[in-house]
Amino acid sequence: MLADIANLSNFMARIVQKYGGTSVGSPERIEAVAERIEQWKREGNEVVVVVSAMSGETDRLLQLAGQVCDQPTERELDVLLATGEQTTIALMAMALNHRGVPAVSLTGAQAGIVTDGVHTRAKISSIDARAIEDALANGSVVIVAGFQGQTESGLITTLGRGGSDLSAIALAAGIKADLCQIYTDVSGVYTADPRVVPEARKIETIAYEEMLEMASSGSKVMQSRAVEFAKKFGVIFEVRSSFNQESGTRVVKESNDMEQVVVRGVSVEKNQAKVHLAGVDDEPGVAARLFLSIAEAGVNVDMIVQNVSSRLADEGSGVTDITFTLHQDDIHRVEPIIEKFRSDSLAEDIQITGGICKLSVVGIGMKSHSGVAAKLFTALAEAGINIQMISTSEIKIAVVIAEERMTEAMNVAHSAFELHLEEPT
Amino acid sequence: MLADIANLSNFMARIVQKYGGTSVGSPERIEAVAERIEQWKREGNEVVVVVSAMSGETDRLLQLAGQVCDQPTERELDVLLATGEQTTIALMAMALNHRGVPAVSLTGAQAGIVTDGVHTRAKISSIDARAIEDALANGSVVIVAGFQGQTESGLITTLGRGGSDLSAIALAAGIKADLCQIYTDVSGVYTADPRVVPEARKIETIAYEEMLEMASSGSKVMQSRAVEFAKKFGVIFEVRSSFNQESGTRVVKESNDMEQVVVRGVSVEKNQAKVHLAGVDDEPGVAARLFLSIAEAGVNVDMIVQNVSSRLADEGSGVTDITFTLHQDDIHRVEPIIEKFRSDSLAEDIQITGGICKLSVVGIGMKSHSGVAAKLFTALAEAGINIQMISTSEIKIAVVIAEERMTEAMNVAHSAFELHLEEPT
Repeated sequence: MLADIANLSNFMARIVQKYGGTSVGSPERIEAVAERIEQWKREGNEVVVVVSAMSGETDRLLQLAGQVCDQPTERELDVLLATGEQTTIALMAMALNHRGVPAVSLTGAQAGIVTDGVHTRAKISSIDARAIEDALANGSVVIVAGFQGQTESGLITTLGRGGSDLSAIALAAGIKADLCQIYTDVSGVYTADPRVVPEARKIETIAYEEMLEMASSGSKVMQSRAVEFAKKFGVIFEVRSSFNQESGTRVVKESNDMEQVVVRGVSVEKNQAKVHLAGVDDEPGVAARLFLSIAEAGVNVDMIVQNVSSRLADEGSGVTDITFTLHQDDIHRVEPIIEKFRSDSLAEDIQITGGICKLSVVGIGMKSHSGVAAKLFTALAEAGINIQMISTSEIKIAVVIAEERMTEAMNVAHSAFELHLEEPT
Repeated sequence: MLADIANLSNFMARIVQKYGGTSVGSPERIEAVAERIEQWKREGNEVVVVVSAMSGETDRLLQLAGQVCDQPTERELDVLLATGEQTTIALMAMALNHRGVPAVSLTGAQAGIVTDGVHTRAKISSIDARAIEDALANGSVVIVAGFQGQTESGLITTLGRGGSDLSAIALAAGIKADLCQIYTDVSGVYTADPRVVPEARKIETIAYEEMLEMASSGSKVMQSRAVEFAKKFGVIFEVRSSFNQESGTRVVKESNDMEQVVVRGVSVEKNQAKVHLAGVDDEPGVAARLFLSIAEAGVNVDMIVQNVSSRLADEGSGVTDITFTLHQDDIHRVEPIIEKFRSDSLAEDIQITGGICKLSVVGIGMKSHSGVAAKLFTALAEAGINIQMISTSEIKIAVVIAEERMTEAMNVAHSAFELHLEEPT
């Protein structure tokens, strides 16, 4: 399978390409993308292209909405925002036609993207690919509006954040594409952020699970939602740049040989804060009450660590310590909740610390290799970097450290796992 | 029937309102229109609103298209331009929702406007009003995108010039509306252009046929196409301003009492030119050949007058004179055609005269009143205005005069038929 994809340019394939807002952000960019599409088409491939709204367009539309009302109805917001991609599909099809390439545009509704009725964050429920199949059979490139669909009863919906990626992955599944290419403004997924780690290398192949862990720990190349959809339907996709001709990173199903690579990459989430509650009653329901209140305030909590309270462990008392991390910007929303917790005598002491970050090493090889955590902790210790919290999953080890040591820690971890070396093939 | 309409505000009615691009040209204008819609709704009426793209929006979209190609595909042009009205419907529905008025938007396709497949100038073939009826039954104001529809097979189409008026009239027929209001930036149809004739008066009621003749002779309040559609389906409509609260001009089926008014209005078409061919062979097919060539050059000819050649009548020779008018801007396209005519010896002499205009008096009362032409000719003669050409139809008398005498001639004609006086009721 992977060998096939590597040689994709040598045989005719059915390809879905997705171009984000920056990639189609101006008439010039649209022409550049049209040229790229033409190449793939001329090589004999069947090409379906999913496009986002031109960058800036969604903001322009939201601003218009803001001028007629404070809080737009979600149904109408979808009708409004859907014009963004509709503009791009028409312009892209025109640009291709102008180059002599047969191409037709389809809105999400016309392309048969059927969703539930949850406006502004609809879920795709099915794909009716007949219109796309017909157009492909006619020899046309098909340009589909991403981010949008329609309900069974014909209402216009949008898919929410990362929606265009999701459209592309879903269409690739729906038309049984050989490959789905997600064109963006970065060249692929890197072993670490190259701006932080100069030795970082583009990853050739990564498993869905690794991509998900990388995404959820700071490498925001794609929304998790689209990756999960791809994993569920087995859609192989490639993240690559629309600004150069390099091949990107292929995201595929985990295979046995992938486990040879213990760590695939290092990612970091910045601007984190840590909330520590000491001497919390160790009774059922107390933690639930805490995190329910926080969720109701609309705050996402990331790592949660609970321990027997170090201070009181000797005394055998029924109290525990809870620590969790969240985005620094959410501190003001959480502060009154934990203050209330203390004033209700549910916690003896509380402490909020900003200026921290979460560093994660990710790799499915961890499942079959021991000593990964030890190697990370040793490397950080040798650099004199203090680990404040630890959290692990089957394919990830995450540590919380001071944000001022972030760059150093990233480079140390990257070196410790020799991520600058080429992947074994 | 007319009495009913005059008292419309006193009973619950089903109303279609259409607002053009200037009426919805800014967020402020959209709010002003929303306030007006709210009034009609609060009075207990069922309201369906047809809107155009915000003024300037179509130009913005065409400019974008022009940046990716010289000659956009018509199919894609329709997809692109349709976003214009889609933006307006969403904003208008939001503005109404914000005021506490239930309202839903529908694109042309969603509203069931089915057209043929002639992109950029599609014809409406049927209306499937179920979505509108459902929304009205739910108590919502329905905001429909004008100017657009979809084919049976689901392609987006636009209706061409005057398309939004046509959408409104067709929907009014489709949902059996009691009244269709065409809101625009003028207060109605006037007995003459008030900028030229200070005494001009807004016409209360006008027959379809009169409206059509007024439109085709220079009073461009509405495209003929929409008026013809209204006449065909018996849709009573009112042309009125969205910038004030005055009632406008009602356009209705001709009735007997309307014939009391001999002349309804005076209109003028400026920037005309006159082409004279003298000594044309008076044989079958010669005129056909001339006007076929002109039509193939894409030029619209207005008046055509053919006479026995004055110069040669005495001699009984088989030649004739042909004179026709056209827009001044088209002269350069017609010139080579008639030059060829002369060089082929099909005409002895040719002459092109610019700087003329066509003045028309229109009224269905002419059918039953004699002496109308004589009254017009006398009035112009007394003012010393020379008539260069005359053409008449059942309800119109048109004369060609020098454009420099236009203002004077308009006022003279307006006075001669006492158009400043109120209509008999």
